[in-house]
Amino acid sequence: MRDPLTIGVDFGTLSGRAVVVRVSDGAELGTAVYEYPHGVLDRTLPATGAPLPPEWALQVPADYLGVLRTAVPEALREAGADPADVVGLATDFTACTVVPTTVDGTPLCELAEFEGEPHAYVKLWRHHAAQPQADRINALARKREEKWLPRYGGLISSEWEFAKALQVLEDAPEVYAATAHWVELADWIVWQLTGNYVRNACTAGYKGILQDGEYPSAEFLAELNPGFADFVTAKLDRPLGRLGDRAGSLTAEAAAWTGLPEGIAVAVGNVDAHVTAPAARAVEPGRLVAIMGTSTCHVLNAEELREVPGMCGVVEGGIVPGLWGYEAGQSGVGDIFGWFVEHGVPPRYHEEAREQGVSLHEHLTALAAEQPIGAHGLLALDWHSGNRSVLVDHELSGVVLGQTLATRAEDTYRALLEATAFGTRTIIEAFRRSGVPVTELVVAGGLVRNTFLMQLYADVVNLPLSVIGSTQGPALGSAIHAAVAAGAYPDITAAAQAMGSARGAVYRPVPENAAAYDRLYADYRELHDHFGRGGSEVLHRLAARRREAATPA
Amino acid sequence: MRDPLTIGVDFGTLSGRAVVVRVSDGAELGTAVYEYPHGVLDRTLPATGAPLPPEWALQVPADYLGVLRTAVPEALREAGADPADVVGLATDFTACTVVPTTVDGTPLCELAEFEGEPHAYVKLWRHHAAQPQADRINALARKREEKWLPRYGGLISSEWEFAKALQVLEDAPEVYAATAHWVELADWIVWQLTGNYVRNACTAGYKGILQDGEYPSAEFLAELNPGFADFVTAKLDRPLGRLGDRAGSLTAEAAAWTGLPEGIAVAVGNVDAHVTAPAARAVEPGRLVAIMGTSTCHVLNAEELREVPGMCGVVEGGIVPGLWGYEAGQSGVGDIFGWFVEHGVPPRYHEEAREQGVSLHEHLTALAAEQPIGAHGLLALDWHSGNRSVLVDHELSGVVLGQTLATRAEDTYRALLEATAFGTRTIIEAFRRSGVPVTELVVAGGLVRNTFLMQLYADVVNLPLSVIGSTQGPALGSAIHAAVAAGAYPDITAAAQAMGSARGAVYRPVPENAAAYDRLYADYRELHDHFGRGGSEVLHRLAARRREAATPA
Repeated sequence: MRDPLTIGVDFGTLSGRAVVVRVSDGAELGTAVYEYPHGVLDRTLPATGAPLPPEWALQVPADYLGVLRTAVPEALREAGADPADVVGLATDFTACTVVPTTVDGTPLCELAEFEGEPHAYVKLWRHHAAQPQADRINALARKREEKWLPRYGGLISSEWEFAKALQVLEDAPEVYAATAHWVELADWIVWQLTGNYVRNACTAGYKGILQDGEYPSAEFLAELNPGFADFVTAKLDRPLGRLGDRAGSLTAEAAAWTGLPEGIAVAVGNVDAHVTAPAARAVEPGRLVAIMGTSTCHVLNAEELREVPGMCGVVEGGIVPGLWGYEAGQSGVGDIFGWFVEHGVPPRYHEEAREQGVSLHEHLTALAAEQPIGAHGLLALDWHSGNRSVLVDHELSGVVLGQTLATRAEDTYRALLEATAFGTRTIIEAFRRSGVPVTELVVAGGLVRNTFLMQLYADVVNLPLSVIGSTQGPALGSAIHAAVAAGAYPDITAAAQAMGSARGAVYRPVPENAAAYDRLYADYRELHDHFGRGGSEVLHRLAARRREAATPA
Repeated sequence: MRDPLTIGVDFGTLSGRAVVVRVSDGAELGTAVYEYPHGVLDRTLPATGAPLPPEWALQVPADYLGVLRTAVPEALREAGADPADVVGLATDFTACTVVPTTVDGTPLCELAEFEGEPHAYVKLWRHHAAQPQADRINALARKREEKWLPRYGGLISSEWEFAKALQVLEDAPEVYAATAHWVELADWIVWQLTGNYVRNACTAGYKGILQDGEYPSAEFLAELNPGFADFVTAKLDRPLGRLGDRAGSLTAEAAAWTGLPEGIAVAVGNVDAHVTAPAARAVEPGRLVAIMGTSTCHVLNAEELREVPGMCGVVEGGIVPGLWGYEAGQSGVGDIFGWFVEHGVPPRYHEEAREQGVSLHEHLTALAAEQPIGAHGLLALDWHSGNRSVLVDHELSGVVLGQTLATRAEDTYRALLEATAFGTRTIIEAFRRSGVPVTELVVAGGLVRNTFLMQLYADVVNLPLSVIGSTQGPALGSAIHAAVAAGAYPDITAAAQAMGSARGAVYRPVPENAAAYDRLYADYRELHDHFGRGGSEVLHRLAARRREAATPA
């Protein structure tokens, strides 16, 4: 009798990754990545070569099936695993990533009549062209005092299901009319695997405005646009699946794509950030998981519902059934460090890094790490890519104070690292002020490798900091869900305990560092509120001028 | 009968420059530079190797005589001039640069007993170690409501004669006791040339607090330190010489050093910035001369006395006899651009500049010049080296707002250029608000070469902008003073008209640019007042932490 295995498949922005995991202890036996042939469509539509407007970001659904066909069998081969040992499969996806389909789930872009129509394609999470629709949704919800609005920190994003669907209705009514279902890709991929269309509790709540069992009302939708009144009943609503539940069984067709046994369990769909919590063994209330990469996504469970200003959303069972799942985020983190390293560092440092055989990030980090706190005399606001939480304002931009003729690249680099830690602390304080406890920071994502940054975060937030043990958190998290769906564990918490991987409290705050950062953080908050909360509107004026100057008269 | 000539000698921070000029039309016939062998002493004292504390900056007086011995004869040779045709000589110096001397003018550092005593050397203008003394002078002057204080924008600098002298009294009483005269180098050099110690109206007023014929009172000085009560009468006061007047005749000894005829006219001493006004043919009221190099010094004449908050000083006859001369300044300009180019520009730009055979400044300027106003979305405060006018606060530091992941080096470079122009506009507005007219900007100094920067300044200040025609403004200005001292012209205004060199209104504001910059300037002023006038004290806190972190516990 051999150890049962599960497969987790993580669908990212540019590629999908499959991992083969042992159910008993979460050992990762093999992995493979498949890059989407079409990547992100943000300039032209391949079928016609027609240009896409700015802020558009589309994908091609057939690319996702390539992950099932290619990465899954390759991961099995790499693991040296017998497919017969695989008892379950689960997936996670970027979100909100949506596609209009026919009644049988065929994406409209795959119909000949719509292959030249951009609105018939998958709209990737970072398609931002529905901002006018989002603005109207927010204005109307505020006016009508819709009770769901505070669950989303007071703002519905242009990235989410309603804004994107309303854009289709208004800009491409013929596509909207042909849409039988408006489907999250997290659910679409499960539909392809099982033949069942089950809406997962995570995206339905965070991206679909499902709260207390209800979507926004027909009256609300009609006031936005009369043609939108029946959007929920006609195109969106479906039976809901709890996370970790079995959505169905692998079909013969999907078994043929993947090389897996027909009939094994397939879990309800999920989102990459949220599925990382069990992978980091951090689904208990109070453990804030920060998935730190180019941006940071924060997920956190709590026993109770609280409305926290400026977070992304709170959803019952949004991370694990039975708890309220909270999501927050920082729109720029690793992106900001990468931007600085590429665009703000003079040749000397590049040469030194080359001579030492380290990356420029490592070189700057080593130089920055030598400094006493406050020695650089700088303070930055980490808004180079806007602010997701707690200000929810993408018109904000980066700020650096305190430069002198003695300021060097490592000084600014360190100030940017610190600024993102202050941004995380701002989110933690918002949770606490609203009565949501945060007792530990658990970090996943690529930035865990930077040990100086991790200690800095521990000092700034003044909490023990644990790090995930896996380098493929979302895929491992999906494999954990697959084990639950297959019945190997009673629930996600138990499966996470056995299969998740974390090194606990690796970094502990140094009291004198925490005290020094307390003082700097007070200054950060002063600037944060001055420039972000109406003390000065100068950043908005600068953004408006930048746009104006870019628009031909 | 050949054309009479004069010699102007400009004593700068690191070198001295002599220029041979034709009296009839100001033609510059020859020039030569002599670098001071000792440069600036800011780390150790050569005589003993003893380390100097931070913020000290000393010089060796013998180096200045090297300029007379070397650069003057070389300039004559280069001009192919017959020394017999030279009718006068004049000098200008950095200020406030002072030295304690014996009764015959021998610098105390040249006495064997004092060669190891730092306080016996020349204190260069940028010796900043007397800040505690300056702070006490200011506090006491405010308390006693000394009527001279508003003439200096409300603040006496640590660079000036009284603060530096008080430091000697308190830190090296034996040097103070041995001091017969506390001499500005602008006057010391004339003393060496003529044997006469005449105090020039310019430094006596701007650096020596001589107002309405009076220095600070003995009561005031006694309250600072009882031993300082007789400082003015015992060590400072001397007959005053008007600018352009003849201080005396060239001695036989100085004739031997320079190769010039004994007995020719030597003018009263002067300061490099102030002497540039006639060189730029800009001594009439309303013409603001900006000498733009690493920092910018502004000089301006007016018919009437006004007390302008935040300027460096107003002195009767401080630029030309008969008018009130105003001085203001920006402590960082070219320095800031240089700092950014050295420390903030990635390798790609260095390579491109090399390939194009241009400097990195030129390359960035060319890229920045392509942008519409406001396109970079940035706004900066030009305080990387503190703020001289109108805030008079060296604890301030640089600020940049508006960075995004799309910000490139040329964007920040342009924002810094703009910030310094906004700084100049702030000074012009302070003059105007106090009733001192400014009708034209006349630019001298190294930065006149940057034509994009000049147009940008014209647009930002919304005034016609003229540029000096000479690349050696101060030395030409001195040569003009020499011609007046020799009697070739009735006054400096007439001599400047004949010998000065300016290209008038070369740059005219473009109305739509001026309007666009008006809007950005309003934002600059908002930030300026917020961070510089008490809205937020964060820059002061950052400076305090930087100092604290640099001090070993």
